[in-house]
Amino acid sequence: MHYDVLIIGGGPGGTAAAKELAAGGKQVAIVEANHWGGTCLNCGCIPTKMLLGATAPLALFKAQERLHTMKGTFSIDYKALQSRVGRFVRGSCQTLAKNLTAAGISLYHGHGVLVEKGKVLVQSKETEEVLTANDIIIACGSSSTCFPELTPDGDAVLDSTGILNLPEVPESLIIVGAGAIGLEFADFFGLLGTKVTLVEAASQVAPTEDSDIAGELGRILTKAGHICLTGVMARSLITKAGHAELTLEDGRVLIAQKALVAIGRTPNTHTLDCEKAGCTLNSRGFLIVDANLQAAEGIYAIGDVNGLCLLAHAADHQGRYVARRILDMEHGPYVSGPVPSCIYGSTEVMRVGQTAKGLLSSGKRIAISQVPLSLNPIAQAAGTTGGFVKIIWENDTIAGIAAIGHGVSHLVTAAQLFINEGYTLKKLHKIMISHPSLDEIIPAAIQAPRQVIQPEKD
Amino acid sequence: MHYDVLIIGGGPGGTAAAKELAAGGKQVAIVEANHWGGTCLNCGCIPTKMLLGATAPLALFKAQERLHTMKGTFSIDYKALQSRVGRFVRGSCQTLAKNLTAAGISLYHGHGVLVEKGKVLVQSKETEEVLTANDIIIACGSSSTCFPELTPDGDAVLDSTGILNLPEVPESLIIVGAGAIGLEFADFFGLLGTKVTLVEAASQVAPTEDSDIAGELGRILTKAGHICLTGVMARSLITKAGHAELTLEDGRVLIAQKALVAIGRTPNTHTLDCEKAGCTLNSRGFLIVDANLQAAEGIYAIGDVNGLCLLAHAADHQGRYVARRILDMEHGPYVSGPVPSCIYGSTEVMRVGQTAKGLLSSGKRIAISQVPLSLNPIAQAAGTTGGFVKIIWENDTIAGIAAIGHGVSHLVTAAQLFINEGYTLKKLHKIMISHPSLDEIIPAAIQAPRQVIQPEKD
Repeated sequence: MHYDVLIIGGGPGGTAAAKELAAGGKQVAIVEANHWGGTCLNCGCIPTKMLLGATAPLALFKAQERLHTMKGTFSIDYKALQSRVGRFVRGSCQTLAKNLTAAGISLYHGHGVLVEKGKVLVQSKETEEVLTANDIIIACGSSSTCFPELTPDGDAVLDSTGILNLPEVPESLIIVGAGAIGLEFADFFGLLGTKVTLVEAASQVAPTEDSDIAGELGRILTKAGHICLTGVMARSLITKAGHAELTLEDGRVLIAQKALVAIGRTPNTHTLDCEKAGCTLNSRGFLIVDANLQAAEGIYAIGDVNGLCLLAHAADHQGRYVARRILDMEHGPYVSGPVPSCIYGSTEVMRVGQTAKGLLSSGKRIAISQVPLSLNPIAQAAGTTGGFVKIIWENDTIAGIAAIGHGVSHLVTAAQLFINEGYTLKKLHKIMISHPSLDEIIPAAIQAPRQVIQPEKD
Repeated sequence: MHYDVLIIGGGPGGTAAAKELAAGGKQVAIVEANHWGGTCLNCGCIPTKMLLGATAPLALFKAQERLHTMKGTFSIDYKALQSRVGRFVRGSCQTLAKNLTAAGISLYHGHGVLVEKGKVLVQSKETEEVLTANDIIIACGSSSTCFPELTPDGDAVLDSTGILNLPEVPESLIIVGAGAIGLEFADFFGLLGTKVTLVEAASQVAPTEDSDIAGELGRILTKAGHICLTGVMARSLITKAGHAELTLEDGRVLIAQKALVAIGRTPNTHTLDCEKAGCTLNSRGFLIVDANLQAAEGIYAIGDVNGLCLLAHAADHQGRYVARRILDMEHGPYVSGPVPSCIYGSTEVMRVGQTAKGLLSSGKRIAISQVPLSLNPIAQAAGTTGGFVKIIWENDTIAGIAAIGHGVSHLVTAAQLFINEGYTLKKLHKIMISHPSLDEIIPAAIQAPRQVIQPEKD
């Protein structure tokens, strides 16, 4: 079969590109080796959000309990929750496949291997088939990173997919890696009563965030009873006598009922054979792309696999860009604009755009203005007032907005729009900001006094 | 004493104007008859949000209970909650007064009466004092409306201030008026176990909203066990044998332990004597203002008292406009821009900008695009998926965004910015929208198929 465009990978990037292309009149096929929707829907952002949705009442209850306004006891039926998550994911998968088919997109179940420019071999258990296309989009995503000494064994040592299928809530859990994935599972299991120990090689939890955000998060996690070990490398992690045994670089040994390895993502390029079609991988296995997200002539790479930004919505954004490029509706280079990201849970981290540390390290002079969440009446009403919102200024332009605290993921699109639309104090006067609202903390932070920070001299 | 600007009323409008004026170097005084912060902080939006913050875990718990993922029992300590709300309000009041004083603003406790242009008599129990000013801003707000047959008696018949001080949770409650105030109290007491009956003269609950939003809200309220009587007038409401007895226009009699009258707001102009200074009141008692919010030469009127928009953030916006006008930083007429509004609770209503019915009644041809909340993963995670988000289009421009469902108040500022910044399908491609997020339901609705609606011919 020949298609206008052939997409390898049916995750957020591949399906977004496919829908846009099909709407533009192209004959499109997607090859997916596992489940429609990719990591995000099947074993990433969506199932974790479903879990955190179930513990959300617990977190709010605890806040009211601390205020002596509420008392009670309640428990989560973990098995029922897992069933619900499974049903939701399967249902969403089926709906997605149905919608893609209804849009005229051909779906192939199998493993896609690049044979040469314009040619893909689709391998499944039963069959092999060669498909050809004018353009190919590689959108086959990433998998959990593991090192020889930190390899999930499916017994006591698990990756982020394995932990979703745990039959019982563990009494204790070691989490290696305190990025978004590790932190979200820490929050979920912590609220279910699991004793959680986070181990992070970087000097702070949430390593990609500014140290003030990470510091506040660390403080809140510790207050909630989590143990946070930062600046320490894991040497080995194995299952021993039915338990997870973690040996740290400094010789300390930690034991827990289960362990989660969440130390990053590795691109799914090892069996793609993409060099045959003229593509090049970097030292970490990511597909190298040019400014137009092109990996070789007639081949684009989008999403996790190109390593630019490992977030579902970045894949979606890149997918729609490439689709419009193929449809001749877009001619300039790919521009991501400010990138939004969230860590979900009872305490959330939200950021859009630049960090202070990123700007300072590139020699920029910046200013910071910020307000604590405790000044916001909606945060006060929830009784969850730790955290703050900060604005990162570069020459009177907002370069980034970051927040930590309960519910701050809800600020993400407003923050995105405040940055994208170049809001300043003067422009802020033009719009009426709803009061009371959690959102009004962003304009409050924009209006707060600014503290100038100079980059460190080398 | 003489001031550059004298402000009558220390609510959201008066204090916003005062801060802006003081920052601009003006000598400013505020005269407040009751509490600093006005209705919003003392007996309006803020205390009700504090109450609803306490019932928020209950609403989320019930959603998970329906899904069989959570069980338990818990209760709110109503007295402890009331104390907490009282402490928070008093503390906020004090902080506000402190901040105003620190900004160099003079605060007068007393009742302000306009003597003539530039002259205000401040009356308190002990003293009388005449203050003069170059400019006067009237920002003295509004009070609960009552009719002779529907007069709160402080016994079983209460207004929205009286109900905040109820010593116990009533077994049953009649609420006359299903606008924002009535609906928020219905949600709060309903979650505490009160049997709630809403009585609304208009043909729907949330009378200012479109009928599809109101219809969905009515459906959710009924499902939650509330009785909603719409299209029926209250003839009389009295306390009888310790209970509230409501007689409807059609002769039906309803009895409940307590009743709340929430049928609107009346401007606090009856003792202002503002005609003496050249101001004019309309038939409903609101101060008539020109396009610059000027009520007479040297006198501005902002907030509830001018009747343009009875919302705290509208008062704030108008206050800052008038301040900048007096500071010679603003020269054009007042432009509100799209107005945001929210009804809070376990099911929320959010709107920014125009309603469909408003546009249709003025002869506009519109289009609607909408998506159900059930398509959103964050709504699914909370288990609270009733409701929808709709976009109201006028000539390919977004004229309004409205939503109903759990947590939709969180969409308000993103909606505001999408409208203000003229987002279209094409412009939407430029920004990366965080996934998963509740927010992404707005772009989804923007991208949904549009249904054209023609205005009804007269």
